[in-house]
Amino acid sequence: MVHDLNDFFYPKTVALIGATNNPMKPGTAILENLSHFNGAVFPVNPKHETLLGHRCYPSITAVPDAIDMAIIALPAQIVEQEIDAVHKKGIRRVILVSAGFAESGEAGSLIQQRVAAKTKEYGIRVIGPNALGVYNTDNDLDTFFVSRERVQRPTRGRLSIISQSGAIAVILMEALARDGMGIAKAVNYGNRLDVDDADALNYFADDAQTAAVAMYMESVADGRKFLTAAKAFAAKKPLVIWKAGKYELGTAAVASHTATLAGRYGLYEAAFRQAGAVEAYGFDHMIDAAKAVALMDYLCVGNRLLVVTNGGGMAVAASDQAQREGFTMPRLPDEVRAKLDGIFPAFFGKNNPIDLTGSGRNEDYYTALKEALPHYDAAIVIVLLGATTVTEEVTNMVARVCHEAKKPVTCCILQGFGYTQDAMHELLKLGIPVYPSPERAVRALAALKNSMKKREVCK
Amino acid sequence: MVHDLNDFFYPKTVALIGATNNPMKPGTAILENLSHFNGAVFPVNPKHETLLGHRCYPSITAVPDAIDMAIIALPAQIVEQEIDAVHKKGIRRVILVSAGFAESGEAGSLIQQRVAAKTKEYGIRVIGPNALGVYNTDNDLDTFFVSRERVQRPTRGRLSIISQSGAIAVILMEALARDGMGIAKAVNYGNRLDVDDADALNYFADDAQTAAVAMYMESVADGRKFLTAAKAFAAKKPLVIWKAGKYELGTAAVASHTATLAGRYGLYEAAFRQAGAVEAYGFDHMIDAAKAVALMDYLCVGNRLLVVTNGGGMAVAASDQAQREGFTMPRLPDEVRAKLDGIFPAFFGKNNPIDLTGSGRNEDYYTALKEALPHYDAAIVIVLLGATTVTEEVTNMVARVCHEAKKPVTCCILQGFGYTQDAMHELLKLGIPVYPSPERAVRALAALKNSMKKREVCK
Repeated sequence: MVHDLNDFFYPKTVALIGATNNPMKPGTAILENLSHFNGAVFPVNPKHETLLGHRCYPSITAVPDAIDMAIIALPAQIVEQEIDAVHKKGIRRVILVSAGFAESGEAGSLIQQRVAAKTKEYGIRVIGPNALGVYNTDNDLDTFFVSRERVQRPTRGRLSIISQSGAIAVILMEALARDGMGIAKAVNYGNRLDVDDADALNYFADDAQTAAVAMYMESVADGRKFLTAAKAFAAKKPLVIWKAGKYELGTAAVASHTATLAGRYGLYEAAFRQAGAVEAYGFDHMIDAAKAVALMDYLCVGNRLLVVTNGGGMAVAASDQAQREGFTMPRLPDEVRAKLDGIFPAFFGKNNPIDLTGSGRNEDYYTALKEALPHYDAAIVIVLLGATTVTEEVTNMVARVCHEAKKPVTCCILQGFGYTQDAMHELLKLGIPVYPSPERAVRALAALKNSMKKREVCK
Repeated sequence: MVHDLNDFFYPKTVALIGATNNPMKPGTAILENLSHFNGAVFPVNPKHETLLGHRCYPSITAVPDAIDMAIIALPAQIVEQEIDAVHKKGIRRVILVSAGFAESGEAGSLIQQRVAAKTKEYGIRVIGPNALGVYNTDNDLDTFFVSRERVQRPTRGRLSIISQSGAIAVILMEALARDGMGIAKAVNYGNRLDVDDADALNYFADDAQTAAVAMYMESVADGRKFLTAAKAFAAKKPLVIWKAGKYELGTAAVASHTATLAGRYGLYEAAFRQAGAVEAYGFDHMIDAAKAVALMDYLCVGNRLLVVTNGGGMAVAASDQAQREGFTMPRLPDEVRAKLDGIFPAFFGKNNPIDLTGSGRNEDYYTALKEALPHYDAAIVIVLLGATTVTEEVTNMVARVCHEAKKPVTCCILQGFGYTQDAMHELLKLGIPVYPSPERAVRALAALKNSMKKREVCK
């Protein structure tokens, strides 16, 4: 079955109504970003003959080819009439970028209602209004009106993003790109006149490129529909949800931001738990949890945590956080301790944490993990790359033993230098989620523990 | 009064006993780092005539000049006899870098006891053993045995660092350097055979270069002495303390790391509160709080928070965190709202948060803050630099209005690009603490609120 949303992500032909070269208007950035698209692009604007090397058409009906999807970037006031033209042209998918609808007050709300009635009548599916639309690394479709000069795009990966807020969608993408983490697809549905949170979840549940979803929401379109979709999704793949507007102050900010009702947070909490989703408490937590569930191939099936470090203080910090997250840290089994006693110098700490001290070498990480990890459910590996005896090559050691033991591992590497950044990107490439503080590495592992669904293995 | 610790931070002559050119030994890195020192350096090692361009002496007694401080980087077993030589030479300050003392087991404990008895008898003050010693940006004294190639040093600033753990001292310095934040001094006292947490606090309380202290501790040497020192310090300057080993798991990790008793966390919590210190819950929180209290010139005297943003979702996140931290977000006074109505376009959000939307310009931040900030106790300013209408210049606008209103402001700027990094460093230079997520910006402002002591203004 081809999902209704498929043409939004895999159109062969795309028209941009409101294409322009005025840098202050969204149509400019969109057209630039569409130049990467692995398909045909038709700009529409009566004032131009060509735009960015494309032939430009005076109206959508003047385009000779069949159009799978239209992006409308026009003032709200003239969108309604444009929908008639889009219908006449036989287009069934519209991304409505324009703002000035329900989010801007009563007048905009009325326009939005009329557009909704009309598109429903015509059988046109709509993403938006007040939306960035879609980003798809599979065919380089990018309808976001944010220039790549200012906001880097992530490369191909296995995480997909669903966001009610355009800014948050962009910021998540930017943060993931910065960390060297790829994504599969992203969608920002804005005022969700039609396509909503649940539709996006249903689509990604069946999308072969999506291994996990990170979702930002302030409110829900239809509670029951959402819960059904979230349950169905989380039964197949890990789902991380950041619901903002949890408390009184946040709820007020939501009313002002998306003109929607944030609803009682307790209801959301219960729904997320019921659905089997991992709840994120804020921006950093969202990123951290999403990285873990999208990257890590192995389930965290229990609470027994091993910590390996070359800096004792950081292991203490990890241990405190482990307690907060409900992990236990059983001592090393006697036979493992005895074995390590025979291999490691006397001053290495052979407890749990295993402390390789400032003298620990790359291969000591491998030895410690190889001997101890099979006796635990998961491990946190802390590497202070400032130590003289350890090098960036340690990443291969850690990844190797993680994949041999088939146990989940997250890493903490303090950031700040080219070589620490390289080590971080290398670990991500090897399938090991990596974080800039011990607390965040533990928190991410806890997300993995709370997401008992092993993500389906994707290419 | 010249404090007892002054000669550790401001010696004129320093001897390094155990200087070497073997890259695997700490004496090499220390000698390299001492080459920056604004004073005289005397390497001691019978096997070398010169080291790194310095004349090298066969023994400490062979050094012709008077020595204010000796650094000993020799195996633990021969430290005791070296103390006799140091005494004979009339040296009264020793940094004992060597490991292999109490932290390594019973035999080391005995050595440590003998060295302690001897130095006490001789009236020699000791930092260490198992310690990195001191870093002072005022005279470029740097006794840390960590190469600058691997770990960047922060430039001159107003924050000083006290750390029981060497690795944490280094990591804090590295993280601050990365963020473009300077420090005044740092000390790692390791096993604190003599100089301890309280001594360091007392010294920094009177140090003219220190405006605030960030402190990492796993245990306390002397509870009553520490509480007295912390109270006295926090009565003058802001104090941020990260006590690791809070819970059962962390406590066990402390026993394994520094062979000390972490103690009941509840007692620490109560003591920190009683002393007026800000407690940090982990690594990121420590960094965030320390930046805020060291940089910001204005007190946060109440709970009334203003949020200004160009991305609504990030403001919702900030509002949720504001609630967690006990802030309120009163609506804009009617006259301010009316005024902004006359200046800003209709689609800007003129509530609290003030949402300048993706169309907000630099000067709109200035206008919003100038009109609204005087009616609040503090503000969070969120700038998504990916928007096309805002530029790095916005940093000057934000700093200007903060300094005009004399109200505390923290910023959130998402990181990842050269230009976002530049904006962050620029804001820090202008005295505005800046963070990579809205939650962290709010948390830092809460630290400022909880540290009611205005730091003394330093050069």
